[in-house]
Formats: sequence, C-alpha cells, structure tokens
Amino acid sequence: MESVRVNLGPRSYDIRFAGEAGSFADFVRFSVPRARHALVVADAHTAPHAEHVRDAIRAIGIRSELAIVPSGEATKSLEQFGKLLDALADLPADRQTPVFAVGGGVVGDLAGFAAASYNRGLPLVMVPTTLLSMVDSSVGGKTGINHAKGKNLIGAFHQPAGVWIDPAFLETLPDREFRSGLAEVVKYGVIQDAEFFAWQEANATAIRSRDRGAIERIVARCCRLKADVVEQDEREETGLRAILNYGHTFAHAFETLGGYGAWLHGEAVAAGMVCASRLAERLGRIDATVTRRQVKLLEAFGLPVLRKPDWPADALIDIMRRDKKAAAGRLRFILPTKLGHVEFVDDVPEELVLEILNWNLSV
Amino acid sequence: MESVRVNLGPRSYDIRFAGEAGSFADFVRFSVPRARHALVVADAHTAPHAEHVRDAIRAIGIRSELAIVPSGEATKSLEQFGKLLDALADLPADRQTPVFAVGGGVVGDLAGFAAASYNRGLPLVMVPTTLLSMVDSSVGGKTGINHAKGKNLIGAFHQPAGVWIDPAFLETLPDREFRSGLAEVVKYGVIQDAEFFAWQEANATAIRSRDRGAIERIVARCCRLKADVVEQDEREETGLRAILNYGHTFAHAFETLGGYGAWLHGEAVAAGMVCASRLAERLGRIDATVTRRQVKLLEAFGLPVLRKPDWPADALIDIMRRDKKAAAGRLRFILPTKLGHVEFVDDVPEELVLEILNWNLSV
Repeated sequence: MESVRVNLGPRSYDIRFAGEAGSFADFVRFSVPRARHALVVADAHTAPHAEHVRDAIRAIGIRSELAIVPSGEATKSLEQFGKLLDALADLPADRQTPVFAVGGGVVGDLAGFAAASYNRGLPLVMVPTTLLSMVDSSVGGKTGINHAKGKNLIGAFHQPAGVWIDPAFLETLPDREFRSGLAEVVKYGVIQDAEFFAWQEANATAIRSRDRGAIERIVARCCRLKADVVEQDEREETGLRAILNYGHTFAHAFETLGGYGAWLHGEAVAAGMVCASRLAERLGRIDATVTRRQVKLLEAFGLPVLRKPDWPADALIDIMRRDKKAAAGRLRFILPTKLGHVEFVDDVPEELVLEILNWNLSV
Repeated sequence: MESVRVNLGPRSYDIRFAGEAGSFADFVRFSVPRARHALVVADAHTAPHAEHVRDAIRAIGIRSELAIVPSGEATKSLEQFGKLLDALADLPADRQTPVFAVGGGVVGDLAGFAAASYNRGLPLVMVPTTLLSMVDSSVGGKTGINHAKGKNLIGAFHQPAGVWIDPAFLETLPDREFRSGLAEVVKYGVIQDAEFFAWQEANATAIRSRDRGAIERIVARCCRLKADVVEQDEREETGLRAILNYGHTFAHAFETLGGYGAWLHGEAVAAGMVCASRLAERLGRIDATVTRRQVKLLEAFGLPVLRKPDWPADALIDIMRRDKKAAAGRLRFILPTKLGHVEFVDDVPEELVLEILNWNLSV
C-alpha cells in the first residue's frame, strides 16, 4: 500500500502503512525529526503494542515513557486528560516532544487532546490499532473528551504529525469491534464513492472474514477519501467536512441515551445511517433502493439497522437538539441524494424525525 | 481612537475602543452576528462590569448568563476550566454561542481556553478591564491555564472574534495593577519601537498619573504593535512571535518560584527585562545605556528592577530549563541589539545566567 499524503500546508502529514518500503523507525524520524523525549499512550488492551512502539522509539535514541489509561469511553474525561498532562510535565516534555497514541478512538481522542493542549500543541503521532480508528478517528485532527451532556463536547482540532497503520493489529481485534469499524467503511461509500460501495457489496464475505487484501484496500481507500474531505475543510468551517457526520446525529443520541457501552460507536452509526437514509426517503430525496442497499450491506457486516426499542424517541430528540451539530436548537442532518453523494439539510421538522424513529420499530 | 484590525485571514478581527463611532451593541452585532445565547465570564472584581455587558447583550436579544470565577492566578486551573464547560453545557451553548471574557488576564486566559475547547471552538469576545490585558493578553489568541509545573502550560491558540477596550475601566484599577501593566508597555518600546520608548520617557509622569490622552495613546499603540507580530506569526511557529517573550523567561521563573501572587506578572516582567538586558550587555550585544534607560523608565513607573534576594538562583535556573520556551533543556532568550530591536539567542551558558541573577543583587 502506498502512503496517503494529507495536504494541509504547514500541517501536512503522511499516513504510512506497515509493509511498504521504510520501517517504523524511518517513519518516526520523518514525522517527528526533532524529538528527544516522547510519551506513548495506550490502554490496557493496547499496552503490549505500545511497549513495542516505545522500544522501537528508544532504539533510535528517543527517551520515552508509557502512560496507560483505563480502557473504554469513560476514559475520555477531564480527569484522565489531567493525568496525561501530569505525565507530560513529569517527562518533562518540551515543544518537540511527541505524543504517540497507540490504540483505538478513545486513546487517540484523549491523547490527541492532551497533545493539543500541552504547551498549546505538541506533535501527535497516531498508531491506530482498531479498524474504526484506522479508517476514521486517527485521520483528520479531531481530538476530544466527553462531557456528561454530550460526546466529544470538549476538544481541539489538532492535526497529527504522522499516522502509522499496521493492518496486522486487526488480526487480534474482537469480532464486534471489527464489525463496528465496518460501519464507517460503509459510510464512505454512501457519502463519497458509489463505486467503493458496490465493491464492498461484491466483496462483503472477504471483508467480513478479514481477508488481508480486502482489508488493506478498504483502509487505504477510506484514508484517501477522508483526507480529501479534511484537505478541503480542515476545521469544519465550510460545511463540507460535515458530510463525514452522515448518520452521526442519530448515532450520538443512541450512544448518549444508551450510555457509552450499550452500543459501540460503529453500531450506533449503522442504525443512524439507516435512520438518516429513511429521513431522506421521507423527504423525497432518494428512492427506497438506496436505503435497502445500505441495510443489506450493514446486515452482511453483522451491524444493527434498528435502534433499541427501549429508547424513548422524545428523549433521543432532546439529545439531538443539544448536539453540537445543531444550530440554535434546530435539527440538521446530512442526507443522501444518491449513493456516493450527500447534502446538508437544515431545519428538519421534529415531527418527521419522531416518525422516522418510530417507523424504525415497525419494520 | 481608531479601531485596530488584526489581519489573520478567516480569523481576522477588530479591536475597538469605547468612545469612537459605534456603540458596544454595534460591536457585538459585528463581531458575533449569529449569537443567540452567550456566556459572560468575570471574577469577583469585574462582576459589576460583567453585569453591564450582560445587560447590553440581552438588550439586543442575546440570551446571556453570567459565570463568576474566583479572582487570582489560582483560578487558571483544570477545575475552574471544568466549571466553565459545565456552565456552557447548561446554557446549552451551540457553535455560535460566544464567550465574553470580562476581566484581566486570568479571566481572559481561562474563559478563552474554555471557548477554545467547547465544541472544539466557540467565538470569544474579549472585554479587558486591566491595562495588562488591554495591551497584551486580550490580543493575539493565547489562552490557557496553569499546571503545578509551569504557568500557562496547558492551553490553546484561539483568536478572539473581537476585542472591546474601554479605557474608563482603568480609572478604578488599583495602582499596583496599573503599574504592572506598564511593564508590557515598556516592553513594546524595547522590542519594536524606539520612538515609542522615547515618547514614554518624555511622558512618564502623565502616563503614571493615568492622563486619559496618554493612556489612550499607549493602549492603541501597543495593540497595533502586538497585532503586527501576531499577523506574521500567529502560532509561534516562525520564531517572530517569540520577541513578545522578552524578559519572560526570567519572569516566569520569578513567578513560579515566588508563587503566583508574590509578584504581579508585570512586576516579574520588569525585573526579567532588566536581567535579559544585562545578559545582552554581558554577551556584548548592547552597551550599558540600553539597560540604564529601561531601569530608569521602569523605576519611574514604580516597578521592580531586581529579583527578590530570597529566591535561590539555582532554583530559578531549574525552572527556566523546564520553561516551554526552552528546547531540550537548553536556555533560550530574547535579547536586545538596540532599543527597538531584539533577537533570539539560543544556547546561553547557564553560568552566565547564574552570574546575571547574582549580579542583580550586588547593584
């Protein structure tokens, strides 16, 4: 697999894949050439990977320490943020000290926000170990922690200095986490690339069984598609980047109401995309085939397409209204006009959203 | 006084002065046109000013709430940061919700970091009420909180959407705080503008007695000088912005060792500039006149020019080595080459710094 270059002027960086020409050590020297100390952050699950990363960095003369945070979404807290800042102060970090985030989205988001905030910005190197973080959270510069009133409500845009992707990490990923990551893969097809969507339909079995060639193809393609969006709208200012939020307004409501842990992020996104697609149907923007193909592919990937029946629709809408993507309490959605293209739709009537949430359950 | 425009592309903003054409309400409509809710942050001292701001904003239809934080440097903490985030979540804030920081540097830095982090960035409006914040901290986008191991160690670059300066606030400012602000005014003369320095020498009495015309002139000139620097190096990347740190490596060490509160920031900067100027002398970069003129002007403004004798020099150096302006433990300074011009000097021997710190006490 070739490197993916994310072109952001002075904040440009490479996404490199293990196995191509050049070792991890070369990648580190290229991405953070002035590093003398480093902090390697991981959680209990990824600690063994992080030890390898630490040893590899030490071998090229960078003094490095490990910081292990608890696993799970609850770790994206102000408290754990403070602990990472303490670990950086203990090094002590200077402005050239990189933070290596070895793990999934939780580790990347938390360690990324600490890197963004310490000294008003340290270099950040992403080493994603889950499918979801490889195709989504490790690329694009969003970092953050949760607040009782909303997911990722506190954070920063902070582009990494480099991203290192080793698909071998996926071999030991639990099945549910692997499937969860596939939801975002489906998303890229719907929002940007109909051909990629069709390729997934044709290769669903190979993907589901983690065929190495299929995995490499989807990871590289998703990184390129995400990089295309981020290059055009780095800080979610022009509205373009919002297309990445397809299905996410519903998904965040599912995650918030269910409590982090009831559903994995990708599971919530899967059901959220189906809701959004049905909303587009109801608004006359697409025909039913577009939704049906998504439902079929998501089901082939073992993902939920219906919200849980014990989540009250009005409580979900209440959360959506407070979503940071809402504007002055008005609900806003990213909706498909066809496979491979989505648009921003403002001011959707709440009654219609309520209908969609209930419609779900009568399918 | 005319507005000062800070040109930063999409992050450009105006510094406006009370008394010129256009009311505060006009300024708010111009700076944050899409605001529907707002959070007004102040401390115990500036709460009455903040109530006026809140009432003025409410009068133009923006729902707004006050958040009052404790006075003093200790407020720049992770705990108070968390409380402001809670207040924003309670509004609830959306992406167009501005944070108004009504106060000195502490309120501006803390409220600014909360604005930078909530939803990965809310509009921030600065309403500085001290001389120091008018001429320095409210312009330029630096926000942050303190860590046990260093001042402003945690934070973000986050440009304001607008800055409103009303010199009338200075009429009630305690004398020591007013004098402290003058240290930064002297600094601008040394680093950028010899003519402005000479003007201060000629008008020291009028300035010290808070003559309105003199105050307006220094505030407007300092804002323009700072804007010139920030426009060329928004995020302290090219090195140019570092000239604003003249005297600050010493100053931060004085503040850290003395504990926040022993000296006000400007007092530490005053003595720090004298140390830096002597260091430049000792390195043969300037003659003694440059230091003498600074000492004389700072003394005319009632500011300290010597560190406190009970601060051990080796402890001060230890702090400087951990300063975020240091690189890999090497001491770096901004030193004058003449009045109106400074340069970055890398790798100054510690023995020399020790000598300067001790020399101070034998003057």
